[in-house]
This record gives sequence, C-alpha cells and structure tokens, in this order.
Amino acid sequence: MDWKAQINAAAERIAGHAQVTPVMQSASLWERPVDLKLEHLQHMGSFKARGAFNTLAAVDVPEAGIVAASGGNHGAAVAYAARMLGHRARIFVPEIAGPAKIGLIERTGADLTVVPGEYADAADMARRFEEEQGAMQVHAYDADLTVAGQGTLMREWEAQGLAADTVLIAVGGGGLIAGALAWLQGARKVVAVEPGSCNALAAALDAGAPVDVPVSGVAANALGARRIGQIAYDLAAAQGISCVTVPDGAILEAQKTLWQAHRLLVEPAGACALAALQWGAYVPEPGERVAVLVCGGNVAPDPLG
Amino acid sequence: MDWKAQINAAAERIAGHAQVTPVMQSASLWERPVDLKLEHLQHMGSFKARGAFNTLAAVDVPEAGIVAASGGNHGAAVAYAARMLGHRARIFVPEIAGPAKIGLIERTGADLTVVPGEYADAADMARRFEEEQGAMQVHAYDADLTVAGQGTLMREWEAQGLAADTVLIAVGGGGLIAGALAWLQGARKVVAVEPGSCNALAAALDAGAPVDVPVSGVAANALGARRIGQIAYDLAAAQGISCVTVPDGAILEAQKTLWQAHRLLVEPAGACALAALQWGAYVPEPGERVAVLVCGGNVAPDPLG
Repeated sequence: MDWKAQINAAAERIAGHAQVTPVMQSASLWERPVDLKLEHLQHMGSFKARGAFNTLAAVDVPEAGIVAASGGNHGAAVAYAARMLGHRARIFVPEIAGPAKIGLIERTGADLTVVPGEYADAADMARRFEEEQGAMQVHAYDADLTVAGQGTLMREWEAQGLAADTVLIAVGGGGLIAGALAWLQGARKVVAVEPGSCNALAAALDAGAPVDVPVSGVAANALGARRIGQIAYDLAAAQGISCVTVPDGAILEAQKTLWQAHRLLVEPAGACALAALQWGAYVPEPGERVAVLVCGGNVAPDPLG
Repeated sequence: MDWKAQINAAAERIAGHAQVTPVMQSASLWERPVDLKLEHLQHMGSFKARGAFNTLAAVDVPEAGIVAASGGNHGAAVAYAARMLGHRARIFVPEIAGPAKIGLIERTGADLTVVPGEYADAADMARRFEEEQGAMQVHAYDADLTVAGQGTLMREWEAQGLAADTVLIAVGGGGLIAGALAWLQGARKVVAVEPGSCNALAAALDAGAPVDVPVSGVAANALGARRIGQIAYDLAAAQGISCVTVPDGAILEAQKTLWQAHRLLVEPAGACALAALQWGAYVPEPGERVAVLVCGGNVAPDPLG
C-alpha cells in the first residue's frame, strides 16, 4: 500500500468538506510547551469527518445509501458527510453513546437506531442492514479509505509547521493512529495512549495479534473498541511504537486542565493523550518536543443542550 | 499618541506571557466563509490578559499590589497576570459576574471581594481601596496601556495572515475595539457590535460624547459597561466606524451555532460579533471578506464546575 499517495488523494477529496483545524502552543498544560492540534473543532466534533468524507467521495454510493455503526463520533461524522454529499444515511448507535452524541446525529436528519448494549451490538445490526438493504457500510476504523482520511490530519498538521519530535495520540479502534503512522512512516515518534480500561492496542501488541478486550470507563463511548483494527495493529507492530495506558482519573484531570487553562472543552477521549503527559505515563527525554492531538469534543451532557 | 509604537512595545512585553491564540476559517457559520480569531482560548478565557500583562509589565507595581474592579473577565485576567508576575492582587467583582467567573478568579489565589450590584459599584470600591491602601489600579478599558495591550490582538491576527476586508468586534467598555482601531488606523473596516441592551458606544456616537446607558441582558456581565471609554469613543468617532446592535436572542443563537458547528464553547459576549452577521444587523457587500473576533469563553454555568 502506498499510503502517502492514498493520503494525498484523500486530502484532495476532502478539501472544502472537512474543516482545516487550528493548532496552538500551550505553556500551561505541562512543564514544557506542548503543541496542540485542535481537531475537536472538526465538523461534528471529531476527526472522524475526514475518513467519512474520504470514503463517500471515493466510491459510488448505492441508491440505498450509507449505513454505519458507531459509539457516536463516527456515526455523527458519517451522517454529516452523507447529508453534505446528498446521500441517505442510517446510523446504528449503541445506547452507551449517550444523549449528547445521539442528539448530534439526530440533528443531521439521518435515520437513527439506538441499539441496547455496546459498539459490537450496533455493528451486528449495521451488518445485517447492509446485507438486507444493499446500503454501503462505512467502517469506523478498519478500512483503507477511513485510515487514509484520518491520515490527512497529520499531513495537515505538518503543513501547519508541526515541529515536535513526538506526537501523542489517543487510541480506540485505531483509525486515527493508523492514519498518522501511515503518513509519518517513522519520521516522528508516535506514542499511542489508551485508557487502562479500553486497551485494545496494548493487549494486541502483548498478544502478537488483535484480541478482544473488555471495555469500560469514562472514555469508553469513544475509545471503547473491543478489538484493535488490523490495519492499525499492522502499522503499530511494524513501526514498534510506544503504547501507554492512563487511568480514568488522569483523563478527567486532563479534561479539566484543558478547560480551565484554555477554554478547550473536550470529551474524555479528547483529553486522553494529554493525560499521558500530565500523569507521567509517557516521560519525554529532556529537550524532546512533544505534541498532543486533541481529537474529540463531544462532551456530555451538552453544555448548551 | 503613536499607537503603532505603543502596540509594538506591548507585543514585546507580553510575549511569552499572553497566549498566541489560533485562527480558523469556517464555512458553516454564515453564507460565505468567515475568518475567526479564537481569542476565547486566551489565558483566563478572554483577550483581557493582553492588557493586564502589558500594564503590569510596563510600570513599577507598588508593594501594596494591584487592584481591579471587573464584571469578571478583566478581574480574572488581572489576577492571573499578577500571580504570574509575582504581585499581590485584590479584585472587586460585582455580583452580576456570577459563580463561574468568580470561581475563575478564586483559583488564581487573588484576594476577592464580591460587591452587591453592578460594575459601577465594584469600581467605586476599587477606587476607595486604591486611595486607602496605595495599591495600583488597572483600568478595565479606558487606559493607554490597557488599550495598547488589547491592540496586540489585531497585530497578531494580521501576522497570522488575516485576509478579511472587515472585522466584526463586540463592544463593552471599548478596550478591545480601541486597540483594534489604534492598530489598524483605517487599514480595514471595523464594525462595532453591541447588544441592544448594552449599547454604550452607539449611544455615545448618537450623543456626540460618552453618556451613561442602562445595561442588562445575556451579555451584560462582560459587555455591560455603563459608559464607553473616552479612548474608544475618540478613536471610533474619528474613524467613523459602523456600529450595530443585536438582540439577546440572536446572541444566544450565535452562541449555539459556534458550539454545534465547531465545538467552540463561548460566553454570550463571545458570540455577539457573529450574531451581527447571522442576524443581519451588519450586511456585507457581495465579495466583502469578513472576520469575526471571538473574544470570551467564560460561559456559565461552568460545564465542568
């Protein structure tokens, strides 16, 4: 796979659809300055819009439209991209997503089914809908077009002058980190950060292959993939990346710091990468310049809901 | 007054203290793209940190420290700048500021007095404290160093590549718009936006001099100055700027749009300038490129409080 070419093509497809998100440098979040990419300001509050636009723009969408299963952010992004590109969308959302994310999807006008249980249950129903109705499924993380779309984020960040040696990225199913690894190809160090209670990548790297893990905790509705994607696993294993975990308390503390220091209101998953730095799960070398990807802002409850 | 020189000096003084705030372009907020300056991501959630740092860094602060009266954002900024530069601070806050902003000031460790009533009552107490204790007062908007500090914002925005013909700016006491006018000197069109219920600048331009106005409404705790500052009035009158007002409903609608479209959570005052565009109080010419200054993020209640 020529990932650089795939990501360049994706960047061209999503230009004018996905938001170019701002960057800033903060001296208030950690003992040294930290570069931030404010990707939670993306349409629908997370990076997922990139993969969604890339997928829908790259393929012939059937008359039956799009179907997706999602803990919330992916479903919202697919629903939004479908509306903007003029396709029907049916989204299966696990109850765990919560009313704030469910409301976000409802406002796009997509057909919405709330499924009792967790992500895997919604995914089962989406697969059935795909088979029965002929709708096209957009996978949340383990598909080439999704990964290439998420890879545009790191491409964009580098074009914005990213100077850091090391980038910390939260991991759920692995679409975002796969895109970053696919773009960077070892040019910078990437640190994967997972909640201790949703550690699909750490467990896979330990086991030597993707394995199922239980998922729970404050970031589970965004990072709670039961199994890491094969694409993410292969890239992470090949590049030998660092993978650390953080407890829920550290995630909530990082969430609070982002809000109090900079009025950046993010969901717990969006603060997960910063937590690794603040809590000491990842300790940079002296002089190592670090960057943190802020990936999701769909906090619950909705503060203006 | 050589404002350009004053603002250049201010920029040098506050470098490394004030946050360089990011910019972005949105295609989702109005019928054409709008440039945004995300100044609500400044330390303590508003542009006020610029004037506070500039003032404290430019003068010899007395042993008795700093005193300020503030509806919230200025007090928070002065308290923060004082702590960072090693000075004592006493802040008089009118009750109208509300618990979110009062909590913000408390967390800086400043001495805090909550005064029953509105801004003018807190200002009276601050003046008395200044006389009796020998503390130095930092004026919220009508002082050269404050205005020059706020002027660094427009200087920074131009350095970040601002391309707009017209910039919309919310007005309370006028420190921010004075800084912008002082820097721009007519190089771009500036539109002043006030809530209909806090229209100190519009009333002054009508009357031909600053006059007292009643203040109320959703943005009163940030924009509710009873009288426009003389510096702001003189600059606005000399440059013949456009001045428009917006109703509270339009402000709340703009606040909701910023959150739903981009996960930018701002206080009503921070959405006031956008409201003028969305509600049609200011109607740009075809082809006129517009920019909106997002100036404050201290929303209440505190979503993580």
